[in-house]
Amino acid sequence: MSEPLPAGLPELRDQVREFVAEVVIPAEAELGPANLDAGRRRELQQQAAARGLLAPQAPPEFGGRGLTLSEQSVIFEEAGYSLLGPPALNCAAPDEGNMHLLHMTGTPAQHERYLRPLAAGEARSFFAMTEPAPGAGSDPAALRTTAARVAGGWRIDGHKRLVTGAEGAAFGICVARTGDGAATMFMIDAGTPGFTVGRRIETLDHAIGGHFELHFDGCEVPGDAVLGEVDQGFRYAQVRLVPARLTHCMRWLGLARRSLDIALDHTDGRELFGARLHDLGLAQALIADSVIDLEASRALVSRACAAIDAGARGTGESSVAKVFVAEAVFRVVDRAIQLCGGSGVSHELPLARYLNEVRAFRIYDGPAEVHRWSIARRASRRRVEARG
Amino acid sequence: MSEPLPAGLPELRDQVREFVAEVVIPAEAELGPANLDAGRRRELQQQAAARGLLAPQAPPEFGGRGLTLSEQSVIFEEAGYSLLGPPALNCAAPDEGNMHLLHMTGTPAQHERYLRPLAAGEARSFFAMTEPAPGAGSDPAALRTTAARVAGGWRIDGHKRLVTGAEGAAFGICVARTGDGAATMFMIDAGTPGFTVGRRIETLDHAIGGHFELHFDGCEVPGDAVLGEVDQGFRYAQVRLVPARLTHCMRWLGLARRSLDIALDHTDGRELFGARLHDLGLAQALIADSVIDLEASRALVSRACAAIDAGARGTGESSVAKVFVAEAVFRVVDRAIQLCGGSGVSHELPLARYLNEVRAFRIYDGPAEVHRWSIARRASRRRVEARG
Amino acid sequence: MSEPLPAGLPELRDQVREFVAEVVIPAEAELGPANLDAGRRRELQQQAAARGLLAPQAPPEFGGRGLTLSEQSVIFEEAGYSLLGPPALNCAAPDEGNMHLLHMTGTPAQHERYLRPLAAGEARSFFAMTEPAPGAGSDPAALRTTAARVAGGWRIDGHKRLVTGAEGAAFGICVARTGDGAATMFMIDAGTPGFTVGRRIETLDHAIGGHFELHFDGCEVPGDAVLGEVDQGFRYAQVRLVPARLTHCMRWLGLARRSLDIALDHTDGRELFGARLHDLGLAQALIADSVIDLEASRALVSRACAAIDAGARGTGESSVAKVFVAEAVFRVVDRAIQLCGGSGVSHELPLARYLNEVRAFRIYDGPAEVHRWSIARRASRRRVEARG
Amino acid sequence: MSEPLPAGLPELRDQVREFVAEVVIPAEAELGPANLDAGRRRELQQQAAARGLLAPQAPPEFGGRGLTLSEQSVIFEEAGYSLLGPPALNCAAPDEGNMHLLHMTGTPAQHERYLRPLAAGEARSFFAMTEPAPGAGSDPAALRTTAARVAGGWRIDGHKRLVTGAEGAAFGICVARTGDGAATMFMIDAGTPGFTVGRRIETLDHAIGGHFELHFDGCEVPGDAVLGEVDQGFRYAQVRLVPARLTHCMRWLGLARRSLDIALDHTDGRELFGARLHDLGLAQALIADSVIDLEASRALVSRACAAIDAGARGTGESSVAKVFVAEAVFRVVDRAIQLCGGSGVSHELPLARYLNEVRAFRIYDGPAEVHRWSIARRASRRRVEARG
Repeated sequence: MSEPLPAGLPELRDQVREFVAEVVIPAEAELGPANLDAGRRRELQQQAAARGLLAPQAPPEFGGRGLTLSEQSVIFEEAGYSLLGPPALNCAAPDEGNMHLLHMTGTPAQHERYLRPLAAGEARSFFAMTEPAPGAGSDPAALRTTAARVAGGWRIDGHKRLVTGAEGAAFGICVARTGDGAATMFMIDAGTPGFTVGRRIETLDHAIGGHFELHFDGCEVPGDAVLGEVDQGFRYAQVRLVPARLTHCMRWLGLARRSLDIALDHTDGRELFGARLHDLGLAQALIADSVIDLEASRALVSRACAAIDAGARGTGESSVAKVFVAEAVFRVVDRAIQLCGGSGVSHELPLARYLNEVRAFRIYDGPAEVHRWSIARRASRRRVEARG
Repeated sequence: MSEPLPAGLPELRDQVREFVAEVVIPAEAELGPANLDAGRRRELQQQAAARGLLAPQAPPEFGGRGLTLSEQSVIFEEAGYSLLGPPALNCAAPDEGNMHLLHMTGTPAQHERYLRPLAAGEARSFFAMTEPAPGAGSDPAALRTTAARVAGGWRIDGHKRLVTGAEGAAFGICVARTGDGAATMFMIDAGTPGFTVGRRIETLDHAIGGHFELHFDGCEVPGDAVLGEVDQGFRYAQVRLVPARLTHCMRWLGLARRSLDIALDHTDGRELFGARLHDLGLAQALIADSVIDLEASRALVSRACAAIDAGARGTGESSVAKVFVAEAVFRVVDRAIQLCGGSGVSHELPLARYLNEVRAFRIYDGPAEVHRWSIARRASRRRVEARG
Repeated sequence: MSEPLPAGLPELRDQVREFVAEVVIPAEAELGPANLDAGRRRELQQQAAARGLLAPQAPPEFGGRGLTLSEQSVIFEEAGYSLLGPPALNCAAPDEGNMHLLHMTGTPAQHERYLRPLAAGEARSFFAMTEPAPGAGSDPAALRTTAARVAGGWRIDGHKRLVTGAEGAAFGICVARTGDGAATMFMIDAGTPGFTVGRRIETLDHAIGGHFELHFDGCEVPGDAVLGEVDQGFRYAQVRLVPARLTHCMRWLGLARRSLDIALDHTDGRELFGARLHDLGLAQALIADSVIDLEASRALVSRACAAIDAGARGTGESSVAKVFVAEAVFRVVDRAIQLCGGSGVSHELPLARYLNEVRAFRIYDGPAEVHRWSIARRASRRRVEARG
Repeated sequence: MSEPLPAGLPELRDQVREFVAEVVIPAEAELGPANLDAGRRRELQQQAAARGLLAPQAPPEFGGRGLTLSEQSVIFEEAGYSLLGPPALNCAAPDEGNMHLLHMTGTPAQHERYLRPLAAGEARSFFAMTEPAPGAGSDPAALRTTAARVAGGWRIDGHKRLVTGAEGAAFGICVARTGDGAATMFMIDAGTPGFTVGRRIETLDHAIGGHFELHFDGCEVPGDAVLGEVDQGFRYAQVRLVPARLTHCMRWLGLARRSLDIALDHTDGRELFGARLHDLGLAQALIADSVIDLEASRALVSRACAAIDAGARGTGESSVAKVFVAEAVFRVVDRAIQLCGGSGVSHELPLARYLNEVRAFRIYDGPAEVHRWSIARRASRRRVEARG
């Protein structure tokens, strides 16, 4: 399906597609579709860098191409065609979202110290917001981790949970309560006393490097560890989360497209009850519904990106897109399994694993139900306002 | 939800919204939401014309604004907020699609004779393609109406069915077989000997003026009744049907939005089991799903329009959009009824009637199942090509 | 699908099926599928009585066969195969539910005065519980109609709404508040001073004789107009509503089965794109899903009936069955329309009308959302109890 | 929800429930919810045997209770409440289905040699029917493994795939082609020359002991290895597969119920946005839909069982039940995950694992699409017959 693309974008898209096909997918055979140690990640990133494809979303002064969100939607889908694509291009969560946040809110010194190595793939990072119940989960207002001013800086105490990629990260960002209804973001270097990476929480998904508990026990950081301004943490969280929801959607769309391709390849030429499987209507229904899901997902993401690129906050648009896309990509992978029958649930095809990866996205970045709740409230409120 | 709109479009959208609110909706009270005789239709159109809003999709040289399909998507949704809106603005089916077809394929003489009065609202028209089984329905290749060359022109014989708005139309377009696998379109004036409008077929929907049978029994038309070129009828049918699917989607989206608004107004302030109905989660789920359906529909339509405006044929894009939107608008109206309970199924609210109007759209312009079948076949074929 | 039936039931089922095929369906041609005046209703009932099929659910001493609820589930589905079947067999709402309630709670004198003519088809009745907002709708506790003791009886004041079949009924049952959290049921004879049948509320459904507003303005009734005991009205409402939900399900299941049959007949022999429509997989998916919906509906109803016949209250079981069946029969009729394409939405087939009839059932007897709410609360409570 | 149970069944159900609660679930903590080596399996079975609960479906003369299929539906759901329950009670696939098949078709000698140790838990078995494409999968007619008469018996050649529990099984049953359109079943002892258990096929599900490839290369078996009669293999396959589909449904229903219980326990007492999560309507919708799915599943299974117990073949009934239940239990587990949010996708709760177990059931025993295809064909054929 063709929509006009911005100048230069079709070429970049084709280059990324080629890189994924020539370099990334062959690496899957050796690594499995998801596992990637630090060394192999660097190798892939160097190959991406050699083609000028590393961190395309990063600002040009930090080595990227400064893609708009709309442009990212095209490129990240291509990268997401392999689970190894986003880390290979250095546009995977959580680093990609952290680069955006650092760029938007960091000081020049923070840019040099954190953003530059992150964009170059020389460091990995984490983003620590979620807490164990009854702390901040879907409801940020429940934040329990605190930061108190001490001589020379701040003292952080609390417990974080499901922090992606924390192990092996050079640094990360921690959100802590700094007042009544106010939060602040802090840069945390690995090895800071009082800060420890706790146990890994095993989950359905494996691609991103693991989810960890973090402990802050009297962890002291200097004053310049504050990211942006004090007490602006909740606002910055939106700066990060709104586009991060969308970039997640983009990457998963790539994997959903791959799943449909795998199913089409697998069923091509197969017969059942004397008919070509492709021509069996019940298979056609699965294929058509997946095409529709992919197109609607892509359309919602691109619409939300256009709104944000044009200056809108995009909270509502990205919320709608997130709910739809998270459920749609799950359906697409699920149908691909169904089309492949016994092979679909076996690990001879990667679909079973993909299903587990995308299942978690219906929870991460806000469970679908919480987004639906806020979408309904917003709609009710707007209607009351429109009636005057 | 906001996406950047082309220059001038926001103003036009607001003018149409205002016209619908100030003129069209008040007329519903008197006319019922769907019935419109020729006189009242002219009155409404004159009011639209006075505001410069008549047939905004028509070419400027025929009194319109020459809106692109993308621009139509914004304006027609506003018009569709009332069932009376599209006829009031002269952008209703089948005239709107006929204007487009005439503009794209007609001779200058045909433009003057047919397109000009049509765009001005001085004449109505029909489009006769569908036939009784086993003739052309979803499968145009089954066309049974024939046109044979006779001295001075053509002789048409056949039976058409479900021809919208045929009664009272000044003229129409008839598709007839003119060779093996070839069809031609003919302009048919009301009153041509051998052409009769038969019985009205009562259906679930009422808005458009009724669906009729047509009989062609040795109906002779002159050579210049051929629209465009001989034997190009199937190609022209695509020229008409592809955008016509989308403009249908646009108008129905307006009605779906209205339905959600009616439900939000109705539930606002109501209580059930001691809670505000708006705050009951099961109501919220209905509201949120409708917002998501509306947004995804709008995004798919606007994406398909952008592709076509940029020169694509858009067959696949419009097919995907049609399936999704036809089912989505039905769900939105259905949920609105559910939100309004007993009032929803009564004719105290217009929702019950809207449900019947939008139900038919899941069949008209190709049943969803036929579109799914072609979407699946296209996807399979493309994948085979992509693998090389 | 065959499940063992109680002795004698297969014969009765076949007799009802034969009666519907030979007498009732032919009457549709003349009457339309839904309209039935009092005279024609009596004629059909006399033919049913001549075959010993009238009011089979009524107690034997009142001319029926005293069928258990499980037995009714088989017979009422057969009756419901035509919209005229239940009135012809005198097992339609609201009379059927009123017979049950009168039998369970009435005095011998009330049995003679009301139940006997009702079971014989000599009188029709109404049941007045629902009120305009903010009165009793889905939430009975909001009851606003009051009954106060006066010399020689009671004085009733209030406003009822959506009272089915009120016009032309010889009598009815009215639920009125008689204390704090307590209600009483009263027998109301047509013509009682202070009682008037108000306007008819036009709705999507037409089969049952119309829904009316009732006005009680100082309507005085004698002491023996109390049905059963004073202040037991809410308990009696459950006695009536729980099985009434299920008998509604049974009858609509018959109509859903008819719809699928009509679609199978219509598509048999038709071709599309050179294949028999029956063999097109996308049609097969619609057919299979409808078979599954019918079977699951039947299984849920029969399970709930067995529980109640065995002495359970059945509130939860009937609630689950009602939600599922109301939505399933709607889907079945909707898919039948889709299978029939253009004919499906026309009134050449009765499917379009059936869709409107069954749509209302998702609201009547409690909207699906209200049932879901109570199902969820019950499940949560039971789990807490089970954990101890 | 209560339906009257056969005499003695409530007691047995309570005993199994107690055994699962006291013995089986505690064993999960040690073993993980799915893994069970031969020794630990024997220990659990001995505890079941000590309570008289081992292989309750087996005929009394082989140590069981000879439960009807309807009775099994109650007991197996209880066993399935833990993934370890069915093996602990020796009513897991494939042994349970093999016991049934051996009982129905085996000679007295085969009963002693195979059925007795199988029912006692002293041996495990396999059932080898599925083959690699293009061999027998969903379409048994494509069977490619052959058996040819040789001196003293038969020689089997072929390749089987996805044979559950083959490794470590003492014996199994192999289906091989013995003529044009005819197949025969053979008893295969482990260690028979020419028979080898090949590689394990890794799949989404883990509970049952693994799925293997089998190779038959000139594997010779004696004449008395034929199970039942020669050339009756396809008929016997139905004898096994029809009830086996249903017993699968029963066990998975237990796991689905457990999943809902886990979700209710997890959400009880949690708060979100200041409200108890239980009371949030969007959570209530998930809970209610799961209750409805469980009830409808149970009703369909019990209806199909009653039909088969009463002598019907049950092919259609079990097909409908299988499609519905396989999809319903998947939805129930999926919703339970959603209700538990981040914990739901983590392995702190077993739900993520359960999702993978039940996912495969939508493929095993015939993919849903293949069942739908046969359900639609049967419905079309029946309607043609009914019209005469």
